[in-house]
Amino acid sequence: MTLTNVQCRLAARPVGLPKASDWEFVSEPVREPEEGEFRVQVEFLSVDPAMRSWMNAGRSYVPPVEIGEVMRAGGIGRVIDSRHVDYAVGEVLYGVFGVQRYALSDGRGVTRVDTALAPAPAHLGVLGIGGLTAYFGLLDIGRPEPGQTVVVSGAAGSVGSIAGQIARIKGCRVVGIAGGPDKCRWLVDELGFDAAIDYKGGELRAQLRQHAPERIDVFFDNVGGEILDQALGRLARGARVVISGAVSQYNAEGKPSGPANYMQLLVARASMTGFVVFDYADRYAEGVSQLTRWRQSGELRSREDVVHGGIEQFPEVLLRLFEGANTGKLVLALESGSPV
Amino acid sequence: MTLTNVQCRLAARPVGLPKASDWEFVSEPVREPEEGEFRVQVEFLSVDPAMRSWMNAGRSYVPPVEIGEVMRAGGIGRVIDSRHVDYAVGEVLYGVFGVQRYALSDGRGVTRVDTALAPAPAHLGVLGIGGLTAYFGLLDIGRPEPGQTVVVSGAAGSVGSIAGQIARIKGCRVVGIAGGPDKCRWLVDELGFDAAIDYKGGELRAQLRQHAPERIDVFFDNVGGEILDQALGRLARGARVVISGAVSQYNAEGKPSGPANYMQLLVARASMTGFVVFDYADRYAEGVSQLTRWRQSGELRSREDVVHGGIEQFPEVLLRLFEGANTGKLVLALESGSPV
Repeated sequence: MTLTNVQCRLAARPVGLPKASDWEFVSEPVREPEEGEFRVQVEFLSVDPAMRSWMNAGRSYVPPVEIGEVMRAGGIGRVIDSRHVDYAVGEVLYGVFGVQRYALSDGRGVTRVDTALAPAPAHLGVLGIGGLTAYFGLLDIGRPEPGQTVVVSGAAGSVGSIAGQIARIKGCRVVGIAGGPDKCRWLVDELGFDAAIDYKGGELRAQLRQHAPERIDVFFDNVGGEILDQALGRLARGARVVISGAVSQYNAEGKPSGPANYMQLLVARASMTGFVVFDYADRYAEGVSQLTRWRQSGELRSREDVVHGGIEQFPEVLLRLFEGANTGKLVLALESGSPV
Repeated sequence: MTLTNVQCRLAARPVGLPKASDWEFVSEPVREPEEGEFRVQVEFLSVDPAMRSWMNAGRSYVPPVEIGEVMRAGGIGRVIDSRHVDYAVGEVLYGVFGVQRYALSDGRGVTRVDTALAPAPAHLGVLGIGGLTAYFGLLDIGRPEPGQTVVVSGAAGSVGSIAGQIARIKGCRVVGIAGGPDKCRWLVDELGFDAAIDYKGGELRAQLRQHAPERIDVFFDNVGGEILDQALGRLARGARVVISGAVSQYNAEGKPSGPANYMQLLVARASMTGFVVFDYADRYAEGVSQLTRWRQSGELRSREDVVHGGIEQFPEVLLRLFEGANTGKLVLALESGSPV
């Protein structure tokens, strides 16, 4: 079976927001699987803020995507032919398949997806890396106690919306920070946050004072920049700041802005800790199982923001994250009409 | 006995480095002690970078010194008259007596100083708050393991010089960062640091790479700014950054500069934690006892940079800290010739 792939490759290291010339689209045949391999047709791509950081050279928690390489992406696809004893045609799998229509795999790093349990996009969000990031970051690094105040930035995003709800389930007062009244309403009305702060609408500092009157015990940060700085100024004694991401900084040209208020860590006897969800791989099963139970009981809700398009749409879908255009987990659902 | 005091009071909140008009000197009689009080003649004043932060309004780990108030300072003095049953004339005491010639006290917050054990200035440094800050900050927050790399900024200062030596005693590779070749030589030749980096002499990043080839497990920071930023870029997996002070930032006009590299906390799965030595008050005895033993065995050395002068010299002595002019613990020894 001759298949023609469409790949989105990194053409140049972006300065600031990625632009059209930073990408290159290539159509070429996919070779047949060898013994121990199978081919996957990618159906859903996970679109995440961290992708922007993978495009930069330099030390990070994963190696950078090299120029000329297919852009790295988690995705869900279906096995279309197989010479691997463990994977049969028709199985639905999660893997880091990349931004391309078809991927070859030897099964390493691939997991089965149970679409009877939840639709595929939820497996990229609440039951995937995003949900696990929220779960381990909040519970292991944030260590919230019942009655404490937990503030989450990027609260309407894939990770933040789950982190805030887990804090609510654990009996905390939860305040979300998000951009715009629609997102804020969603957090309070649908997800049960105690309050939501629209960082675009009014003075952040005053709003934090209002909604975190007893200061912040856990700050779960997906955003960085000014929001991190203001949260540091509002920490309670012994607070934990969880560094999950820094979406406001990924496109910074030159040096990103550091938290000028970091000496409040001393004033509050607080800690700021970074983590990477991959370190919890041996506990993913525990996390997915708990997230699934909460989801089935209705305690944990998720939203998947599914955009339909081809591989060629990936660059513009990625930009939505930095425009704050998405609510919940952003997924690119690949149309079946791609060239074969 | 009528005594005429000389007090150094805060006249204005400084912008940047404190200048002459930020201070006011007042001479006035000291009242007689009432029942349960005693009077102390202050002989030695502790001069510390943190004093600069006490001069600013706003939330910190201690209340700000108010305009018109005597400048806060730890000091060692001698009881000159007493109506307190526990304190006799001639006893030598440590207390937060302030920048003044004479102080009244009811004994609260006051401790006895054994000058047979070590000269008074050492009780303001290695056996005082500075030594305790190094001891608890390094061991409790930094938690160094034998063989790990510990980097200390402000390493030739009162706290840093002790923190580095404790790390050496604990079997760590110790690298100090200090300003100028003399200080660096002192760290290596006299205090047994494995290496010293002169931040004024050459590229800090390259020097950190050279002297911390296996990266940094514990960074004990007294300085902040560019030095903190470079150290963050060199953290080992699971590193601990101890925020003890930020002498490079205390005189910043406007917002201090935050650590732009803070996302390296995520890359390295590291934590950055602030602490205040006062929280360890119930363990001071343990700390002083250990520091004393190390000092007596010769494993721990200290230098006291004693400047002789009157209360009127305090402002210029304070500025030495921000010029990097002192090595070791800076102390103002008050001349006995002050007006009586």
